[in-house]
Amino acid sequence: MTLRYRIYLGNSKDFIESYFSSLEGDKVLAKYAAAVMLAHVKALLDQGVMPKEHSKDILNALVEIVKTEGGTLYRWVAEGKYRFEDVFEALEAYLHDVASIGAGYIAIGRSRNDHIATVLRLFTRDKVIEVMQKLLELRRVLLDKATEFRSNLMPYFTHGQIAQCGSASIYFASYEQIFSNIWRLLAQGLEMLSENPLGSGAASGSVLNLNRSYIAKMLCLSDALTPPYYSTGSRLFALYYLNTLSLLMLEVSRFAEDMIMLSNLIPNSVNPPVEHIATSSIMPHKRNLVTMEIVRANASKVMGYAMASQSIYKGLPYGYNLDFQEINALLRQAFDVVNSTLDVLIDFVARLSINGDAFLKYIADKPCWSSELVEYIAMTSGKPVREVYLTVAKLFKSCNSVDEKCILKILSVFGLSIQDVWSIVKSKPVEVSVKKLLEDAWIRLERDRNVIKNVIDFAEKCTAELLSYPS
Amino acid sequence: MTLRYRIYLGNSKDFIESYFSSLEGDKVLAKYAAAVMLAHVKALLDQGVMPKEHSKDILNALVEIVKTEGGTLYRWVAEGKYRFEDVFEALEAYLHDVASIGAGYIAIGRSRNDHIATVLRLFTRDKVIEVMQKLLELRRVLLDKATEFRSNLMPYFTHGQIAQCGSASIYFASYEQIFSNIWRLLAQGLEMLSENPLGSGAASGSVLNLNRSYIAKMLCLSDALTPPYYSTGSRLFALYYLNTLSLLMLEVSRFAEDMIMLSNLIPNSVNPPVEHIATSSIMPHKRNLVTMEIVRANASKVMGYAMASQSIYKGLPYGYNLDFQEINALLRQAFDVVNSTLDVLIDFVARLSINGDAFLKYIADKPCWSSELVEYIAMTSGKPVREVYLTVAKLFKSCNSVDEKCILKILSVFGLSIQDVWSIVKSKPVEVSVKKLLEDAWIRLERDRNVIKNVIDFAEKCTAELLSYPS
Amino acid sequence: MTLRYRIYLGNSKDFIESYFSSLEGDKVLAKYAAAVMLAHVKALLDQGVMPKEHSKDILNALVEIVKTEGGTLYRWVAEGKYRFEDVFEALEAYLHDVASIGAGYIAIGRSRNDHIATVLRLFTRDKVIEVMQKLLELRRVLLDKATEFRSNLMPYFTHGQIAQCGSASIYFASYEQIFSNIWRLLAQGLEMLSENPLGSGAASGSVLNLNRSYIAKMLCLSDALTPPYYSTGSRLFALYYLNTLSLLMLEVSRFAEDMIMLSNLIPNSVNPPVEHIATSSIMPHKRNLVTMEIVRANASKVMGYAMASQSIYKGLPYGYNLDFQEINALLRQAFDVVNSTLDVLIDFVARLSINGDAFLKYIADKPCWSSELVEYIAMTSGKPVREVYLTVAKLFKSCNSVDEKCILKILSVFGLSIQDVWSIVKSKPVEVSVKKLLEDAWIRLERDRNVIKNVIDFAEKCTAELLSYPS
Amino acid sequence: MTLRYRIYLGNSKDFIESYFSSLEGDKVLAKYAAAVMLAHVKALLDQGVMPKEHSKDILNALVEIVKTEGGTLYRWVAEGKYRFEDVFEALEAYLHDVASIGAGYIAIGRSRNDHIATVLRLFTRDKVIEVMQKLLELRRVLLDKATEFRSNLMPYFTHGQIAQCGSASIYFASYEQIFSNIWRLLAQGLEMLSENPLGSGAASGSVLNLNRSYIAKMLCLSDALTPPYYSTGSRLFALYYLNTLSLLMLEVSRFAEDMIMLSNLIPNSVNPPVEHIATSSIMPHKRNLVTMEIVRANASKVMGYAMASQSIYKGLPYGYNLDFQEINALLRQAFDVVNSTLDVLIDFVARLSINGDAFLKYIADKPCWSSELVEYIAMTSGKPVREVYLTVAKLFKSCNSVDEKCILKILSVFGLSIQDVWSIVKSKPVEVSVKKLLEDAWIRLERDRNVIKNVIDFAEKCTAELLSYPS
Repeated sequence: MTLRYRIYLGNSKDFIESYFSSLEGDKVLAKYAAAVMLAHVKALLDQGVMPKEHSKDILNALVEIVKTEGGTLYRWVAEGKYRFEDVFEALEAYLHDVASIGAGYIAIGRSRNDHIATVLRLFTRDKVIEVMQKLLELRRVLLDKATEFRSNLMPYFTHGQIAQCGSASIYFASYEQIFSNIWRLLAQGLEMLSENPLGSGAASGSVLNLNRSYIAKMLCLSDALTPPYYSTGSRLFALYYLNTLSLLMLEVSRFAEDMIMLSNLIPNSVNPPVEHIATSSIMPHKRNLVTMEIVRANASKVMGYAMASQSIYKGLPYGYNLDFQEINALLRQAFDVVNSTLDVLIDFVARLSINGDAFLKYIADKPCWSSELVEYIAMTSGKPVREVYLTVAKLFKSCNSVDEKCILKILSVFGLSIQDVWSIVKSKPVEVSVKKLLEDAWIRLERDRNVIKNVIDFAEKCTAELLSYPS
Repeated sequence: MTLRYRIYLGNSKDFIESYFSSLEGDKVLAKYAAAVMLAHVKALLDQGVMPKEHSKDILNALVEIVKTEGGTLYRWVAEGKYRFEDVFEALEAYLHDVASIGAGYIAIGRSRNDHIATVLRLFTRDKVIEVMQKLLELRRVLLDKATEFRSNLMPYFTHGQIAQCGSASIYFASYEQIFSNIWRLLAQGLEMLSENPLGSGAASGSVLNLNRSYIAKMLCLSDALTPPYYSTGSRLFALYYLNTLSLLMLEVSRFAEDMIMLSNLIPNSVNPPVEHIATSSIMPHKRNLVTMEIVRANASKVMGYAMASQSIYKGLPYGYNLDFQEINALLRQAFDVVNSTLDVLIDFVARLSINGDAFLKYIADKPCWSSELVEYIAMTSGKPVREVYLTVAKLFKSCNSVDEKCILKILSVFGLSIQDVWSIVKSKPVEVSVKKLLEDAWIRLERDRNVIKNVIDFAEKCTAELLSYPS
Repeated sequence: MTLRYRIYLGNSKDFIESYFSSLEGDKVLAKYAAAVMLAHVKALLDQGVMPKEHSKDILNALVEIVKTEGGTLYRWVAEGKYRFEDVFEALEAYLHDVASIGAGYIAIGRSRNDHIATVLRLFTRDKVIEVMQKLLELRRVLLDKATEFRSNLMPYFTHGQIAQCGSASIYFASYEQIFSNIWRLLAQGLEMLSENPLGSGAASGSVLNLNRSYIAKMLCLSDALTPPYYSTGSRLFALYYLNTLSLLMLEVSRFAEDMIMLSNLIPNSVNPPVEHIATSSIMPHKRNLVTMEIVRANASKVMGYAMASQSIYKGLPYGYNLDFQEINALLRQAFDVVNSTLDVLIDFVARLSINGDAFLKYIADKPCWSSELVEYIAMTSGKPVREVYLTVAKLFKSCNSVDEKCILKILSVFGLSIQDVWSIVKSKPVEVSVKKLLEDAWIRLERDRNVIKNVIDFAEKCTAELLSYPS
Repeated sequence: MTLRYRIYLGNSKDFIESYFSSLEGDKVLAKYAAAVMLAHVKALLDQGVMPKEHSKDILNALVEIVKTEGGTLYRWVAEGKYRFEDVFEALEAYLHDVASIGAGYIAIGRSRNDHIATVLRLFTRDKVIEVMQKLLELRRVLLDKATEFRSNLMPYFTHGQIAQCGSASIYFASYEQIFSNIWRLLAQGLEMLSENPLGSGAASGSVLNLNRSYIAKMLCLSDALTPPYYSTGSRLFALYYLNTLSLLMLEVSRFAEDMIMLSNLIPNSVNPPVEHIATSSIMPHKRNLVTMEIVRANASKVMGYAMASQSIYKGLPYGYNLDFQEINALLRQAFDVVNSTLDVLIDFVARLSINGDAFLKYIADKPCWSSELVEYIAMTSGKPVREVYLTVAKLFKSCNSVDEKCILKILSVFGLSIQDVWSIVKSKPVEVSVKKLLEDAWIRLERDRNVIKNVIDFAEKCTAELLSYPS
């Protein structure tokens, strides 16, 4: 008979058990569940808590689950049409099925509560690293564009209205800076993911004195002590990452907003790859930036996942509550949305081209140099800048509308031509410093690449050691 | 070749199109999409816009899609491994495939924007009716419990601490009142769901002057005029229902919180059906109310869906934006969570039993009658109630802890026994009025049942007429 | 000595009591607290529970507090530098101070829990009526603009890109429709606000059998029975209105988004009153729509208040919890934001002018008639509409960019001039039906005005009766 | 005449300007606004952009505003009943008023956009440091309690039901761990707060080439380059801290939930200081943990502020938008709530006492040792742990209810007394390791204290230098 914890409790019913079971959603956690169990079993064997003679089948089964990413386990469940509460019950039942006697010995010195807390940290670490790698790629293509379009002037906006003009480099470098900052926030949380909850028991520890360091090493975790009620009862690390993914998506959404706004405001100014565009079923002239629209909506979704998770967490007394299970689901969904969004965004930016002429034509009759004009006159004349500003403001006021004629009239007051003001704009200090800024950004990118490489190398080494055992 | 709107626009790529395509999620909308198209085609035929000779295959195909709930359409898509933006592109392509020439005539006088706005109203209406029916059932089982446990005293809480005692009827009647109010909120939104957006075009109407009343009648919609930019550009009805579902889940969550709290505070006081309970994998004494925990978490999820949808909506200029597509997904998820939660909750309440003895034992040494005592003494003595209160407060203060000894000491001051105070509690006016209150509630329930029955009858009649055409 | 409920409990400390006291925020509730107490005291007198000889000072004091909107009460508190938990403790202490003996008799047959539940309903009702009145005014100015600008063509957008063109009436009528729907949602909740919780006690009733009908009548409340645990333990009505205010603000935010987008896209197309605009401190050319920006931000704030309130509510077991107090604060803030936003918006719309020429110039070289062209050709030629669409799509594809030249080339294929297509656009059926639609909207507005007028008249009559007593 | 930027734009109206003006809320920012302006003016003087002869009054005025925390500025505004858009317009107008000619020279090489971005970083840094200091104090009192109550057994919960028992140290150490982690998250964001946006202009830089390093040094900022559109157009740092404050409050809320739950479940088990408790106005027996209830509600409020801010941010194109202004307000409110909550919590924990006897009495008949029993039997018997578990589960099942009799029956099966199991519980490895864990925690606390001390020392040195100039 298949193992069920509820055997002496009473029946279950399909529609009820499917309501609270996490088995399906746990599939992506299965390999981590097996890996953690593997480390645990190895420690049990090492300390003689489990008889060696029954261990081989178990070790083999666990290694296989890790290698098939849960495949063998979930195939067994599907074939037997079994019902389980979660991957842990399924895993133990499976081991009982394939490894008979030995499987009875493993459920000591740990609980589902510390097991899931460990598994989630490992899963989250892998997912965070995946996001960090994609962010590195995104930063690279942004820096490429910042380099490629250095000599293109483009308009910059405040209050949703054209404000200044400047090199397109500033635009792409700004987003690179954002994603570089977010990359650092992602990295900073890794310390919480290296805590080792295993052995915490349900809430306040186990009778068994397992070798924490040995287990921690096999799972690339820290061997620092953490209080067991914290280890099993907190989901701070998950909420931290949900929030950070939300911040990441918000910035991506603003980029999408820019692209949609620019393509409406200045036709043909930004040319996204055609795959990111769709047309209308009845208006053949339409060119809709559909991926960017979905990016915006997905930002709200991830924000909603983060908020839902916090709301779940907020009302709970300390210790493990099953409500946490739904945070797992929301975390998985958030990573899925973020990863597919980054794939789309990297493709979008990498193949994006900027139409310098369209921008030039657009800004030709827009006074996006008014602050530079004021500063320039003030500096060359020695007059107080506010006085100059008010003079120029009055001139703008005197125009019926701000068009080419108005602009020329204003400039003529100061004996300047339109070419003069564009020269002033192009020779601002920022146009020089942006070169240094890009150099710094490339160096920072290279440094961050090495950080991630080391993290991955370290993880691969631990995993290799973990899986090496049963030869 | 299969119809694609983007044929002259350019290629698509799998990972990009799957990012913005809603085809998969639209599956539950397919039958409504076909039904609306059916009404549209019948109007085109009726007004001679479409040649009759090519219509038969189309009408048959549409009726079949409605009857198979999208099955024939999605099977065709799967077999052809086609890629589409959404159910509308798929539907038109399918009609081109099965009905050749005639299919070319249908895309007039409507757009995807007014089509989806109509489809979503029909879908939402069906889902709302489903929720309303389940709520009627929930209210019924709550009233059953209110009747069954009228003579059981149970504790009532304020500030999470025991406050008063009273008949268990009050408890169940309170939740019935809540769900009755929410039922009314659900009913009140139905008016928005009867608006008819079809014919609004993309944003500001079509060249074609279709017979709105004829179409509206076939879809059980109102024939009132609504401005086309509103009709296609608003999702107020969806946000209203997301919010209302969120309110519903919040109240369900509070019930869950009560059950978890009571089962911890007073062992065996509430006895849920065993299927709603799970035990621990390492602590065999544990009895966890797992469905109630998931109910709580799901409340936060629905709140998150509602919030995400509002956040999506908030930043958008008017008119249709593809971002809306993700609101559809969130709305579907919200209905799924709510419906499965109500199934679980109805089962929980229907088979719940209350252990009157456990409650009696628990309240025996708790002064949950202190306000009644104060009122009783004030009324019988003619003293100001505040004076009596302060006297009693001082007596409580004088006890080291509030236990049986303390209670007897306090009562003795007023010459009362513990039996006396229980008599006072049991003879409060509310214990009489609860009988009338339950009678009113049963009548209200019956009235609401008739309302829903009429709505369903009306919808069935329209649908029958809609599908009857092609004999 | 001033009355404090905690007299036998122990001291309080300033920084702690100010953390949990709601006294300051309760100020706007003070007149309602006094009015409810007045109704209660009159019932006590009527049933002889309270000696008549001590009642005069109390009745006078209560009437005065109602008339001064809490002024006399809060002046007394300020002068005495008293510390209280909330307005109820302050009110009772004040009555003890000014009315000596009689005040001791009032705290019977009610509690702070049922008192606040009643007060909040009355406060919310007044605030909802205020919002509904402002919405009527907003709808009026929107209909005025819809009438005024009927002959102006303006562009309509989908996916943030120009889609169709049509009469500006459609734009304003669309928003009127939205606010009409929201007005109805506000009205529909009034039924919950007419419930009478007074007499529910803390959770499960009082010993006293007060005349509910008499009290209800004086407060314009329904005399239907509601279960006491519901009456004091639910805040559904507050959450409902927070959600509805959030929906209202979301739609206002989309209008603001439109205005900001249009003023950037088509300079001088929308001319808001100058008071709604600000300029830059360094860029004298800037014209920022600052009120519309704040409108957008305020929409998010109200959404945040609604979400925070739901999150507060979600984790609580049933019955009154002090956490509710913060929902009161959030509800107040939401009403304040909504009311000031509506004032600003009404002024903005009332004085807004539309520059028809700017729109005409902008759309001159934009094919916002492409769907109309396709439909027209299909209808006049009898060809399948999809075939025509693909022909036109191919023509658009063949242009390098969509400009005047491209447009003329496309039209020439069908033997049409640009004047022809504008004629087609202007003679769409919607341009006729919009007249009927506006007539209906004006009638609906008048009907809704009468509804509100009746509600207000009724409330004034009750209040007059309530205050009339102590001559 | 008082300076207004809108002088040539047109009038303002009170109710409109008060809608978009941030002047009132900016008050707490005034000293930072003056400090940043001071650094800017010193740089202008240093580079000869501003004539020295007019500078003295300006420098003095700015130093005075810094020293009076905005007092002199806001007094001038109040006395003149001036209307301004924000603190920046007010500040410049004030300088024009008190320093005549020189004031005209300052508005060069900076904008309100880079100014506010710098001011917000300085304000946030001070607020973050304040929170970090309070967290250090909270961690200290938690470690004190962990040390004080090491020998007290207390129950630990999972699923809201009693699970295990263990030393009370684990409880307090768990929360210390949480707040230590959050402390680190707060520290990690400081890097974003040291960015120097000044000189970025409105969006893409100024004509003036100011000495960034000199300015940065005076404001304790980094002199690294950041792209100007990022510097003025991003609020990532604010959102990061709003999210982190939300996480902090969630954990505080769970502590509050624990306290409320324990005081209901086990009367007198936790004895909070009496100032944190209130009683009922009608039920003299009530002892409500009112500060803890408000803590819970405040957690939701801060979550709401964070969510509202993200929602504001999400829809905005890049660059500065006035919508940001409301994020400032929400950030201020969040810090206020967090700081007052931490004050209350520190007082609560510092004076909290645990009643070991009440806990012992409560757990006496609760099998919170069931997992330890299973592990113990498995280890001593060599039997598979799952087999032992099922045996014990069956024994529990055989009891009618889990009471003392049941417990003794179960233990007798294994020849154990109740004393035996308590010995097993008390000798778990965690009870030893908790000592080491506390030692580590104290060391970590000391280390963190030094970190903060250095940050504060550094800030004080910069400020002294900044203010030293005009002697």
